[in-house]
Amino acid sequence: MDVHIKNILNDLKKDDFQAYMLTQFTNVEYISNYKPTSFAFCVIKDNPVIYASSMDMEIARRDSDIEVREYESYEVMIKELRKEGIKNLAIEPSLPYSTYVRFRDDFQIDSKTYVDKQRMIKTPEEIGKITKATEIAQKSFLQLDILNNSGSENEVAFDLVRHMIENGASKESFDTIVASGPSSSLPHAVPQDKKLQRPILIDWGAIYEGYCSDNTRTMVYTEKQHEIFDIVKESHDKAIKAIKPGLKCCEIDKVARDVISDYGYGDKFIHSTGHSLGLDIHETPGFSLRDDTVIEKGMVITVEPGIYLEGEFGVRLEDTIEISRKGNVIGDLPLIID
Amino acid sequence: MDVHIKNILNDLKKDDFQAYMLTQFTNVEYISNYKPTSFAFCVIKDNPVIYASSMDMEIARRDSDIEVREYESYEVMIKELRKEGIKNLAIEPSLPYSTYVRFRDDFQIDSKTYVDKQRMIKTPEEIGKITKATEIAQKSFLQLDILNNSGSENEVAFDLVRHMIENGASKESFDTIVASGPSSSLPHAVPQDKKLQRPILIDWGAIYEGYCSDNTRTMVYTEKQHEIFDIVKESHDKAIKAIKPGLKCCEIDKVARDVISDYGYGDKFIHSTGHSLGLDIHETPGFSLRDDTVIEKGMVITVEPGIYLEGEFGVRLEDTIEISRKGNVIGDLPLIID
Repeated sequence: MDVHIKNILNDLKKDDFQAYMLTQFTNVEYISNYKPTSFAFCVIKDNPVIYASSMDMEIARRDSDIEVREYESYEVMIKELRKEGIKNLAIEPSLPYSTYVRFRDDFQIDSKTYVDKQRMIKTPEEIGKITKATEIAQKSFLQLDILNNSGSENEVAFDLVRHMIENGASKESFDTIVASGPSSSLPHAVPQDKKLQRPILIDWGAIYEGYCSDNTRTMVYTEKQHEIFDIVKESHDKAIKAIKPGLKCCEIDKVARDVISDYGYGDKFIHSTGHSLGLDIHETPGFSLRDDTVIEKGMVITVEPGIYLEGEFGVRLEDTIEISRKGNVIGDLPLIID
Repeated sequence: MDVHIKNILNDLKKDDFQAYMLTQFTNVEYISNYKPTSFAFCVIKDNPVIYASSMDMEIARRDSDIEVREYESYEVMIKELRKEGIKNLAIEPSLPYSTYVRFRDDFQIDSKTYVDKQRMIKTPEEIGKITKATEIAQKSFLQLDILNNSGSENEVAFDLVRHMIENGASKESFDTIVASGPSSSLPHAVPQDKKLQRPILIDWGAIYEGYCSDNTRTMVYTEKQHEIFDIVKESHDKAIKAIKPGLKCCEIDKVARDVISDYGYGDKFIHSTGHSLGLDIHETPGFSLRDDTVIEKGMVITVEPGIYLEGEFGVRLEDTIEISRKGNVIGDLPLIID
């Protein structure tokens, strides 16, 4: 039996649950190899089963490592599970309230993160895919020749995606951010139909064989922009240097945040320092104030400090870090683009 | 006060709730004009308020029609709501279980679809945007010159998105489906790096000013493909002709399904007949077996029957219908492409 399923069965036993129900597409994919395109209920128990929608049956039967049945109704599913003696059901924290309500009268329910916990630690194969995604994304970025680019934010964003696909990505890992001039003070700016202003902040990533990459670079010009850039770079570098197994995630956030606070910009660093990635662009754990997860070998987490000066500009620098005995930056794109 | 908020306050009063909490990005946007890029809690009550994340504060303050506060913690939010005397809290059905759990000890909770209900009926302005999105998407499709196209599924999908963006779309409304040969039997096929085979099924849409379009065309070649095409076309045409205010959604599904069943392919029509669209690509109500929502003027719903022959091919035809005194097809792209 698959090691992931075995681990979940152990977790279930320990917590006195009889089954774990997964509906998040990437969790179902991680466990079964079948990637839903419509709803699916994957129930991990001694004899695991997936209830797939009729429109997914062809790919579910083709790809799934575990038994697949065609979903008929909540009633049928619940009846089958009850018949097997299942009374305590673990669910994902993300399960919609309306779905939870369907099950709460028939089962003792609580949410568990059994799959997320396993997904935290990437195998060498998974790290290989993240690395390849990063290489594709970084190569594509360089093809933009950004310092000599006269396109609009929109055009640059589109060209970047085009390069990534031509270089082997299946798609972008999130909506590409190309934010220039004052827009760069918005962490999640949407590219506009305007010629590139300065500074230029680009936050982008590729998906390769299902796995995401994530990077940010900011190209600065004025003295003030350089000053802010240097602070963000110091924060970025010190945080990465501090990473090692055994520390807590929040300790890395503190390292990054302290640098920025010491220069007086603490209230301008308006998000956490980083997030894990893999099949999803945002996974757990993250380098954030309140995340006391202990860092372990095999985790892959971004470091992306930023300073955002409303009405002026913003600077963010982001790399993705593979954790071994220390934190290793994935890819080799310099922070300073020239 | 905004009419949408006024309607919600009336619904709340009727159902004996004191507040309605929205977290779905498009719901928050619909009500407040601020489109979250990170989490946000929009609480509709006599004095509505949005708790936005620190990274969204700049755009939230810029765009929101209702008061914005910076989110600090669940504890602070709950304390502020309790202080105002709120004891009964309505939530969206999609609220994650883990968020629901944060609130359930302090409030009587149930899920309501107050905003979805309003979003069902589009204003002329919204219909205008959906129409423009459809026109962009259809014009872009014709630019593919699909019958003479020698690209791969991947390339065709990419070119289609490129044309849509060049023609004024902000992006595609969902991952473009270009499925050819046997892949066309998968309703949600992912484009592959293979030369176009036959038939060619393309399901695509654009976003224009936030609003989605959705169409599917299938280009058939062999006698059997033509035979199936004609059945799907008959189903598509009859369903659209049957649409009128006052009928139930499931009755339109039945019209479409009966045609296909009468030809003996009932079990090969493996999804529902259609879904509403707007700010989201999938909205309620839908033309499906179990949806007994009464059709009303101002709804915009797709009609997309299909027949899927595993191992052989599939055919789907999809148009988006604006409901006035009857069902009007949006856009003017023929079903038969030549």
